[in-house]
Amino acid sequence: MEKTVIISKADLLEHWLGHRNLTRKTIEKFPEEELFKFSIGGMRTFADLIKEMLSLAVPGLDGIVHDKIEKYNHDLPLHTKAELLAQWDKDTPVLIDLYNQIPEERFHDDFNLFGEYKFPIVHNLMYFIDNEIHHRAQGFVYLRALGIEPPFFWDRY
Amino acid sequence: MEKTVIISKADLLEHWLGHRNLTRKTIEKFPEEELFKFSIGGMRTFADLIKEMLSLAVPGLDGIVHDKIEKYNHDLPLHTKAELLAQWDKDTPVLIDLYNQIPEERFHDDFNLFGEYKFPIVHNLMYFIDNEIHHRAQGFVYLRALGIEPPFFWDRY
Repeated sequence: MEKTVIISKADLLEHWLGHRNLTRKTIEKFPEEELFKFSIGGMRTFADLIKEMLSLAVPGLDGIVHDKIEKYNHDLPLHTKAELLAQWDKDTPVLIDLYNQIPEERFHDDFNLFGEYKFPIVHNLMYFIDNEIHHRAQGFVYLRALGIEPPFFWDRY
Repeated sequence: MEKTVIISKADLLEHWLGHRNLTRKTIEKFPEEELFKFSIGGMRTFADLIKEMLSLAVPGLDGIVHDKIEKYNHDLPLHTKAELLAQWDKDTPVLIDLYNQIPEERFHDDFNLFGEYKFPIVHNLMYFIDNEIHHRAQGFVYLRALGIEPPFFWDRY
């Protein structure tokens, strides 16, 4: 059955990259110390949430592209805001390159991501994006609690 | 140019409905009083955020389907948790029905949503979903701050 393309492969990437821009702006808003120390209700710090995102995106795509099943590791050796931002910026072009290597025909194939999440590849990709929106919003609340205005939610540039 | 369907119209609806299920579970976790009173850093209560979601989803789709340009109104007369949940449940089948009435060919057409957001319809729909994930995450933090465990993020059923 022929269907209209609602969201193309390129659209989904562009959508993700817009969210990555906003997440980067959110990191930038945090004071160095609070980025690594502040949290609410026993949740993780925003630095830890960013490390989770970093440990999912490129390693996840690398697994999908090269058919490697490896466990993720959220405990990245990034100890300053500058290091987090540098890793973020280093990962973005790698993410783009890996994403573009996934053939459209594979998007609906199951892949056992990190040896734990056996779902269609497109679902795993959407989960990465959703997870980033979700945890970034946690960062927005942390910022508000610190009396700092977060970026605008629609500012993805 | 022919392209593979990465995310079909039906897939996007299913994705949204999964998120709506999770948002509903999040409302359920709130104690009545905190739902309408608790907030962090001067942000809106979770009840107000839910009212925003309600005032965007069905009214937005109604505007798109019937080509009506009307301003949104977040100030819905819903004053108890039961009323919020009842409206949520009432809206879900209406949302499905309206969504299904949007022809695939229109998804890339611009629509001046609420007379304010002139973007391709598919972008406006994705914005509804992103906005729901974002504000629901705020609710997750409120719950944690209240010592209540939120639902599981992956539980969309």
